[in-house]
Amino acid sequence: MDDDQKYRSASGAEVRALCRTGEWDKPTSRMAMDYYQANLVIVPAEYAFEFMLFCHRNPKPCPLIDVTDVGDPEFKVAAPGSDVRTDVPRYLVFRDGKQVDEVTDIRALWRPDHVAFLLGCSFSADAALEKGGVEFAKINSKSGRFGAWTSSIECMPAGRIKCNMVVNGRPVASRSVAKAVAITSRYPLAHGAPVHIGDPSAIGIDLSRPEWGTSCTVEGDYVPVFWPCGVTPQVAAIESKIPEMITHKVSHMFVTDIATSDPIHW
Amino acid sequence: MDDDQKYRSASGAEVRALCRTGEWDKPTSRMAMDYYQANLVIVPAEYAFEFMLFCHRNPKPCPLIDVTDVGDPEFKVAAPGSDVRTDVPRYLVFRDGKQVDEVTDIRALWRPDHVAFLLGCSFSADAALEKGGVEFAKINSKSGRFGAWTSSIECMPAGRIKCNMVVNGRPVASRSVAKAVAITSRYPLAHGAPVHIGDPSAIGIDLSRPEWGTSCTVEGDYVPVFWPCGVTPQVAAIESKIPEMITHKVSHMFVTDIATSDPIHW
Repeated sequence: MDDDQKYRSASGAEVRALCRTGEWDKPTSRMAMDYYQANLVIVPAEYAFEFMLFCHRNPKPCPLIDVTDVGDPEFKVAAPGSDVRTDVPRYLVFRDGKQVDEVTDIRALWRPDHVAFLLGCSFSADAALEKGGVEFAKINSKSGRFGAWTSSIECMPAGRIKCNMVVNGRPVASRSVAKAVAITSRYPLAHGAPVHIGDPSAIGIDLSRPEWGTSCTVEGDYVPVFWPCGVTPQVAAIESKIPEMITHKVSHMFVTDIATSDPIHW
Repeated sequence: MDDDQKYRSASGAEVRALCRTGEWDKPTSRMAMDYYQANLVIVPAEYAFEFMLFCHRNPKPCPLIDVTDVGDPEFKVAAPGSDVRTDVPRYLVFRDGKQVDEVTDIRALWRPDHVAFLLGCSFSADAALEKGGVEFAKINSKSGRFGAWTSSIECMPAGRIKCNMVVNGRPVASRSVAKAVAITSRYPLAHGAPVHIGDPSAIGIDLSRPEWGTSCTVEGDYVPVFWPCGVTPQVAAIESKIPEMITHKVSHMFVTDIATSDPIHW
C-alpha cells in the first residue's frame, strides 16, 4: 500500500497535523478523500483585494474556499485551528514572478501583511468520479491526470492581475464523458464541470507538450476532457509580478475540514 | 396599473436606462422580475478587501454578485455598459456611520478610489415564489415583506467589519412553508433559504418593532419566516464607521442583466 493510500480515510485535521509535525511532505492527492483539498496562494495585503477580485471573476479556475484576515495564519472557516505556515507538505516561494525556494515550513517567511487564500482543487471530486464508475485511460500518473497547459482561454483580469486559464486534461472513456460532466458539475468548489471536451487545439493545447505533468497520446475510445486547474491563480500572481508570493507545491495541497458531502452552497 | 407593474417584463438594461435619464426614482421591487436585482455598497479602496472578505464569509446575507475595479464605475460582469453613478433610482450617502444625504445621481461624489459592490436581493426570488403558488398573508406592503430587524445572529467579522445579521420576515401560509424554503434555496444569489422559521424571539426579534418597514401580527394559519436581508452589508459598513459610504436607498435597487433563469452556478 502506498503511503498516501494509508491516509485515504483520514480527516483534513489529521493530514494537516502530519504536515505540521514534518511527518508528511509528499503529494496529498489520495489522502483524506472525503474532504476538500485546496490550492494555497499567499500575497501581500497590498494585492489582496485585486487577487480576491480576480478569483471572484474567474470562479471556475479559482473557486474561493477561504481567505484569512490580514496577518492571521488561521483559516477560520475551512479549517479552524489550522496554521497556514506549517500545515501544507511543501511550499514554493516566488519573488518578482520567479521561483526562488522550496520549503516545508514558512514560519520564518510569514509577515503581518500576508493574506492567504484557499482555492478549490480538482482532487476533491475524485472520490465521486471513482464511485460513479467514470473510466479514465490508464496512464502513468497517480492522479489520472496527464498534464496541465496554459490554454488560449482568457481569464477576466482584475486590476494588475491577469492570465490565461490553466487547464488539466484527463483521457475519459467516451461512454463516461457525460457522467464525468454531470458528477464534476456538482462540485463547483473543485472547479466544477469541464471547460472543454475534445479537440485540444481548439483551446490552444498541444497534448505532446504539457507545461506541467506527463505528456501522452489519447487513443482509441478515449476523449480528452479539460477542467480548469488550480494552478491558474499561481500563474496569475506570477505573470502579474507580485513582488513576493508563497504557494503550495503542485499536488501538495492544504486539506480542509469541509467534507465534500457538505451542502456548502445552502 | 401601477408604474412599477408596467416595467414588470422590462430588462435590467431598460430599468437602468430609466434611472440614468431620471425618468425613474422609485422602488424597483416589481420591475424586471426576470433579472437579478442587487443591493449597492460603495466604499473607499482602503476598506475594499475587508468588505469583500466580510461578504465572502457571510454569503447568505451578502451574496456577492459583482465588484468593480478600483475607480471604475462599470459592473463588467453583471451589467456591461452600466454606470453605477447614475443607474440606481436613489442613493444614500453615509459619513462616519451617519446618513447625511439622499440623491438620485452620484456623479459629483464618485472618486478614483471608490469600489462598488453588488449584493443579491430577495426581490429576485419573488417571481419564482409567485409562480410556485407560495401563499403569503396579505399585508399592506407591495413586496409582501412585513419588516426587517437586526437579529441576534452574529455575522462572522472580517477585520474592522462586523455586525449582526439583518433579516426580513414574511408571514407564510403553513401549507406553503416547505415550498417557500425549497424555492428560495435554489436562489443563493437572492439570499437563498430562510435562516429561521417560527418563533421570532428565538433570534431576538419583536415583530411589533421592526427597524425597517411595516409592523404586523402573524395570525391564524400563518408562520413567520425570516430570510437574510441585503441591508446587512450596509449595517456592517455603518457600524464599522467606514468614513464614507454610498448605498442604494432601501427597495431602490440596481437591476442587473443576469436572468434569474441563468445557471449561474455552473
